[in-house]
Amino acid sequence: MKKLNVGMIGYGFMGRTHSNAYRQVNAFFDLKYQPVLKAACGRNSAAVKAFADQWGYTSCVADWRELVNSPDIDIVDICVPNNLHAEIAIAAAKAGKMILCEKPLAMNVAEGRRMVAAVEKAGVPNLVSFNYRRVPAVALAKRLIDEGKLGRIFHYRANFLQDWTISPDVPQGGAGTWRLDAAAAGSGVTGDLLAHCIDTAQWQNGAITGVNAMTETFVKERLHAVSGKKQPVGIDDACTFFCRFANGSLGNFESTRYACGHKALYTFEINGEHGSIRWDLHDLHRLEWFSHCDPGRERGWRSLHVTDHGGDHPYMEHWWVPGLQIGYAESFVHQVADFLTAVAAKKPCSPTFRDALQTQKVCEAVLASAAKGQWVEIAAE
Amino acid sequence: MKKLNVGMIGYGFMGRTHSNAYRQVNAFFDLKYQPVLKAACGRNSAAVKAFADQWGYTSCVADWRELVNSPDIDIVDICVPNNLHAEIAIAAAKAGKMILCEKPLAMNVAEGRRMVAAVEKAGVPNLVSFNYRRVPAVALAKRLIDEGKLGRIFHYRANFLQDWTISPDVPQGGAGTWRLDAAAAGSGVTGDLLAHCIDTAQWQNGAITGVNAMTETFVKERLHAVSGKKQPVGIDDACTFFCRFANGSLGNFESTRYACGHKALYTFEINGEHGSIRWDLHDLHRLEWFSHCDPGRERGWRSLHVTDHGGDHPYMEHWWVPGLQIGYAESFVHQVADFLTAVAAKKPCSPTFRDALQTQKVCEAVLASAAKGQWVEIAAE
Amino acid sequence: MKKLNVGMIGYGFMGRTHSNAYRQVNAFFDLKYQPVLKAACGRNSAAVKAFADQWGYTSCVADWRELVNSPDIDIVDICVPNNLHAEIAIAAAKAGKMILCEKPLAMNVAEGRRMVAAVEKAGVPNLVSFNYRRVPAVALAKRLIDEGKLGRIFHYRANFLQDWTISPDVPQGGAGTWRLDAAAAGSGVTGDLLAHCIDTAQWQNGAITGVNAMTETFVKERLHAVSGKKQPVGIDDACTFFCRFANGSLGNFESTRYACGHKALYTFEINGEHGSIRWDLHDLHRLEWFSHCDPGRERGWRSLHVTDHGGDHPYMEHWWVPGLQIGYAESFVHQVADFLTAVAAKKPCSPTFRDALQTQKVCEAVLASAAKGQWVEIAAE
Amino acid sequence: MKKLNVGMIGYGFMGRTHSNAYRQVNAFFDLKYQPVLKAACGRNSAAVKAFADQWGYTSCVADWRELVNSPDIDIVDICVPNNLHAEIAIAAAKAGKMILCEKPLAMNVAEGRRMVAAVEKAGVPNLVSFNYRRVPAVALAKRLIDEGKLGRIFHYRANFLQDWTISPDVPQGGAGTWRLDAAAAGSGVTGDLLAHCIDTAQWQNGAITGVNAMTETFVKERLHAVSGKKQPVGIDDACTFFCRFANGSLGNFESTRYACGHKALYTFEINGEHGSIRWDLHDLHRLEWFSHCDPGRERGWRSLHVTDHGGDHPYMEHWWVPGLQIGYAESFVHQVADFLTAVAAKKPCSPTFRDALQTQKVCEAVLASAAKGQWVEIAAE
Repeated sequence: MKKLNVGMIGYGFMGRTHSNAYRQVNAFFDLKYQPVLKAACGRNSAAVKAFADQWGYTSCVADWRELVNSPDIDIVDICVPNNLHAEIAIAAAKAGKMILCEKPLAMNVAEGRRMVAAVEKAGVPNLVSFNYRRVPAVALAKRLIDEGKLGRIFHYRANFLQDWTISPDVPQGGAGTWRLDAAAAGSGVTGDLLAHCIDTAQWQNGAITGVNAMTETFVKERLHAVSGKKQPVGIDDACTFFCRFANGSLGNFESTRYACGHKALYTFEINGEHGSIRWDLHDLHRLEWFSHCDPGRERGWRSLHVTDHGGDHPYMEHWWVPGLQIGYAESFVHQVADFLTAVAAKKPCSPTFRDALQTQKVCEAVLASAAKGQWVEIAAE
Repeated sequence: MKKLNVGMIGYGFMGRTHSNAYRQVNAFFDLKYQPVLKAACGRNSAAVKAFADQWGYTSCVADWRELVNSPDIDIVDICVPNNLHAEIAIAAAKAGKMILCEKPLAMNVAEGRRMVAAVEKAGVPNLVSFNYRRVPAVALAKRLIDEGKLGRIFHYRANFLQDWTISPDVPQGGAGTWRLDAAAAGSGVTGDLLAHCIDTAQWQNGAITGVNAMTETFVKERLHAVSGKKQPVGIDDACTFFCRFANGSLGNFESTRYACGHKALYTFEINGEHGSIRWDLHDLHRLEWFSHCDPGRERGWRSLHVTDHGGDHPYMEHWWVPGLQIGYAESFVHQVADFLTAVAAKKPCSPTFRDALQTQKVCEAVLASAAKGQWVEIAAE
Repeated sequence: MKKLNVGMIGYGFMGRTHSNAYRQVNAFFDLKYQPVLKAACGRNSAAVKAFADQWGYTSCVADWRELVNSPDIDIVDICVPNNLHAEIAIAAAKAGKMILCEKPLAMNVAEGRRMVAAVEKAGVPNLVSFNYRRVPAVALAKRLIDEGKLGRIFHYRANFLQDWTISPDVPQGGAGTWRLDAAAAGSGVTGDLLAHCIDTAQWQNGAITGVNAMTETFVKERLHAVSGKKQPVGIDDACTFFCRFANGSLGNFESTRYACGHKALYTFEINGEHGSIRWDLHDLHRLEWFSHCDPGRERGWRSLHVTDHGGDHPYMEHWWVPGLQIGYAESFVHQVADFLTAVAAKKPCSPTFRDALQTQKVCEAVLASAAKGQWVEIAAE
Repeated sequence: MKKLNVGMIGYGFMGRTHSNAYRQVNAFFDLKYQPVLKAACGRNSAAVKAFADQWGYTSCVADWRELVNSPDIDIVDICVPNNLHAEIAIAAAKAGKMILCEKPLAMNVAEGRRMVAAVEKAGVPNLVSFNYRRVPAVALAKRLIDEGKLGRIFHYRANFLQDWTISPDVPQGGAGTWRLDAAAAGSGVTGDLLAHCIDTAQWQNGAITGVNAMTETFVKERLHAVSGKKQPVGIDDACTFFCRFANGSLGNFESTRYACGHKALYTFEINGEHGSIRWDLHDLHRLEWFSHCDPGRERGWRSLHVTDHGGDHPYMEHWWVPGLQIGYAESFVHQVADFLTAVAAKKPCSPTFRDALQTQKVCEAVLASAAKGQWVEIAAE
């Protein structure tokens, strides 16, 4: 088993989920590679040190450029705020590193295009961490669709509902709340949450060709955690859009951080000619499945407890025994397993930077549509 | 359409559900008979008058003997406390009336045997109102079992959980609370609630051959609503028993009125070789169905919304359109419809008094087992 | 109790639900009035006769004008296709009748305005049958909102999902399928289904001030049941819109008849500052309620089984005992009870024709927005 | 952070869950000790080697005696079939090792008493792996009970339902199916599954004082995986019992491996004077909670998504962010964290061998009761 040294840039929530995945993957998946937690990188040296100690990184680096250019590093993992993705990724590509980048790909499509060009020119393995694709229930949904079990698709509906910013006392900016700061995040729920929904949707249901959106910022000013001053809020607190897919189906998407009672309620529902599928992140180990092919009397929504073995349920035979659920973090383990498998096979691992660019285009179109109050078409690349 | 005059004895909760059923049945079912609300009977003449006016009974009678022997009456409907069932039913049988009697059949097996003898000797149509058999979802469960969809049955589990007597301030005896008075009710949850579970279970799964039970009375004394005095509580507040069925399966039954948060949670679950079924009264329009015959990957509990037409879902084509649910009261409408259909066909309508006697035998065995703390066998009649 | 003679125009699905309500209402509600099923009216005399016999109407009338002008009739109940509402209602108003009209009010706003003018000029009691307001769980939601339990509202989301027209073999026009015929129905899901959602939404959350919509017709041609010919489909099979409410909240509405697995899944969810509410028609006796005021550790969505008495749960003390659910049909009984109570009190009963006109305006704006592909504002009347 | 060397005996399902816990614990919990995977032990040297490689054990041992007596080993972790627990544990105690032993404690009470004596004499830290206590939702239930939120307890109900042995083709004995072999397992569902239920129940609700049980073996003969011959099945396939607790409440327990559709459906429900609690392992991150203290109108079962931070939800602040669920395996991480915390504090960590002995006594009483068909009392130690 060949070792691959990981350089982790960022040590927040995503830094933790990725580190956990690297540590767990070889105990559950038979792979040709073994990731090694080599270096952690961040500007706050005390915080980086604590993070490195906790997760077992053997060194700390203050400057990401040093890490990116270090010959010791095989994989650069980018877990910093969105405004830093492009510069780091392009440098890492130039340095010939494999790259795993948190979502969304970039601040905008222009940045995203440069990143795609860089990794494709360098020919380095690259992946954007839309981890929900690799929740077993979501992967099972994809299989059912691909096998034609739903027939022609009529509707795709997705929501991502949270409630953590209802209080006007939540600040913007800084370590824990950079997602509320337009300068660091680029956008609000559109890039942070709808990007996940759009990635899954296009993966399952093909390209979105046009969108019509509405956004709202409910709390207009928040204290900035760094400046200590009240500043206008530049992000979208809520975003709703409907759209058309290339396959003729209709989409309806909504995200907000003002849905009291929902912490992370990512849901999707797909209605096809022969069946329908529903999923939600609050019970991520279940898939709801309705098949019109069942005998009339016995037709009903099935709640699949996606924990079976023998290949029935994606990824699950690597874990425990049927009936015992996994959680959120395992989706990142699957991501690393798939990425390393693809590296071994010298194949791309989706979603690549190029795949993520298509999501970025939809996000940008959504924001443009909301700003203009009208439909925006999305051209095929 | 021939008219059949109904004489209703009792005007409480069950008097209302039965009256409603007689009023509604011809609008939804095509029958040869039309029940007519002819006479209401009870000891409190003001209360009977108010009841008769509300439901459209054309006369009131104070003495049930008068009603039972009136040539104007075709159907005697017995909705009085349990200690009055036997005497009235036997008199009605002698008078040649059709009889619809509330459950449980009697205070004990000896009484029940006399009642069965009386109706069988007189040759009159007779039915005991175990109405839950005629909830569409429950009837659908029966069909699935009868068709062998579950294969060999291993387990039958039923609960009937309520919470209305947790407070020691609830009185016993009198109009609204005679069910807590052993003199009127015979027993507590065993006769009132478990009788329903046992009726459904034996109908679905065959005879119970032996039981082992435990009962408890949590509140030892209650004010008697009639005497105004604290009196010992003679009923079982809670009863649990396990049992064996003639088909080799195991049963587990429990009922209580001390299950905080459950108003009327009658549930059953049946586990067979090829599938399983669950139902609960709090969502009575749904049936949960698991079929091991589904492809492995798609196996899951289905929630059947039992509202379809075209014969798929029992009784439902008589009501509204698919997707729109009926409630509790409709089970009594189905009961009257089935009873009148059987009368027209000169066939018995189950559960007859004889069928209900089998339930009475199990109830009596349960109480005897709890008293003795050991197994009690139940002989086939 | 004063009798009020009902003249029923139409004998389809809604004719049945209304007839049932008139028959049941006095057994459950103490009212000053007793509706009497006096005359049924329709063009197919055999069908009208069968309907009248089944429900107990004492006469049949072929021409609605005769019924509307009959001195025997007190209440005109309009249960015919939408294209006939205006003419009949205006004539009934002129004849001084009380009017109960099925939804949607009219084919369009212009018609609706004439109907409002007619009933207001005549000063007759009038109601449009948006019956879902009177499902107990929905009425409870309204109370919670009105008492400020949710605080400031951020989001209102409603869906009405069906699946009965997925097959291209379903015809349009004629008795059972006039809802697919634009000439009879005016629109598709917008007027038939979203009208319900919009009525409830504006009742609960105030006026909608602007909409942005998308519609689709998935099956472009269907056989016409009357002409026997393939004809273009003129209705909207699916409609999605987002909107803004006068109170600053955002709305997201969707309806379709192509959502496999959903028969009549009307759902709404309201997210406020302090709590959230969810409801769905497939389990209409439940209300989901989240209160942020609960202690942190115990916060969770509560499933209220809306069957309690003592005034806790609207309408329910009129029915059975706590824990036992009612169904769809009872919402019409409540509607008649409220209507007759309002008549006795000489007060309007909402939704009046004027209230329903506001819903009609939103429907019309939705269809206009979808046609133009842009926002349409809705002026206050 | 002091290192503690772990010697793992056994490499099956439980060997995996324990190994994973040792590997993960320091990344999520701040502890004074760091477990190190030092040696894996088992009779099949190739299998042990593969296991050691996969999990990172640095050495392999064939004979457990060697491991137990090795000065390199600090913690002996016993994950072998039940018939080997006593001998290994007693030897490990004599060698002065800390001991973590899989459940059930022993083959019977006599063995269990010797094990308790050994660890207490040696004064070594000891724990039996009833891991479900440390599922956050289960721990939260315990807190609510301990704080008196439920008041007097009336009922305790628990089920553990599986379906993996319905087919008579499943063999007994050998690596994967020793749980079906009485010689290795001691009993069937009683020791394997009900032991979990009994441990949780007595922890939450106090001592069980008497039981009345029924067992059944549905499949009478199975092929033995080692001998290759059909042999009688000696274990209980299913077991039901009711019981009384010292606090006056009633218990009802059932377990089976013949409940089609349930893979690992461990459920419990507790009904108290002021509230009730439900939990099930198939959705282990949720706790159902009903509080009668809520205002009448708003009373309903709450579904707590047990993922909050700030101390609201036990263990959860160590993981991700609110709304994101953990799975089954994390309960073992919590177990190791609590064990090492207790070691550091020089305190016992429950369930100790002594605690587990009380569970063993109930299991033995259950089997005795089923054999005799009568109540068996359980004396306090």
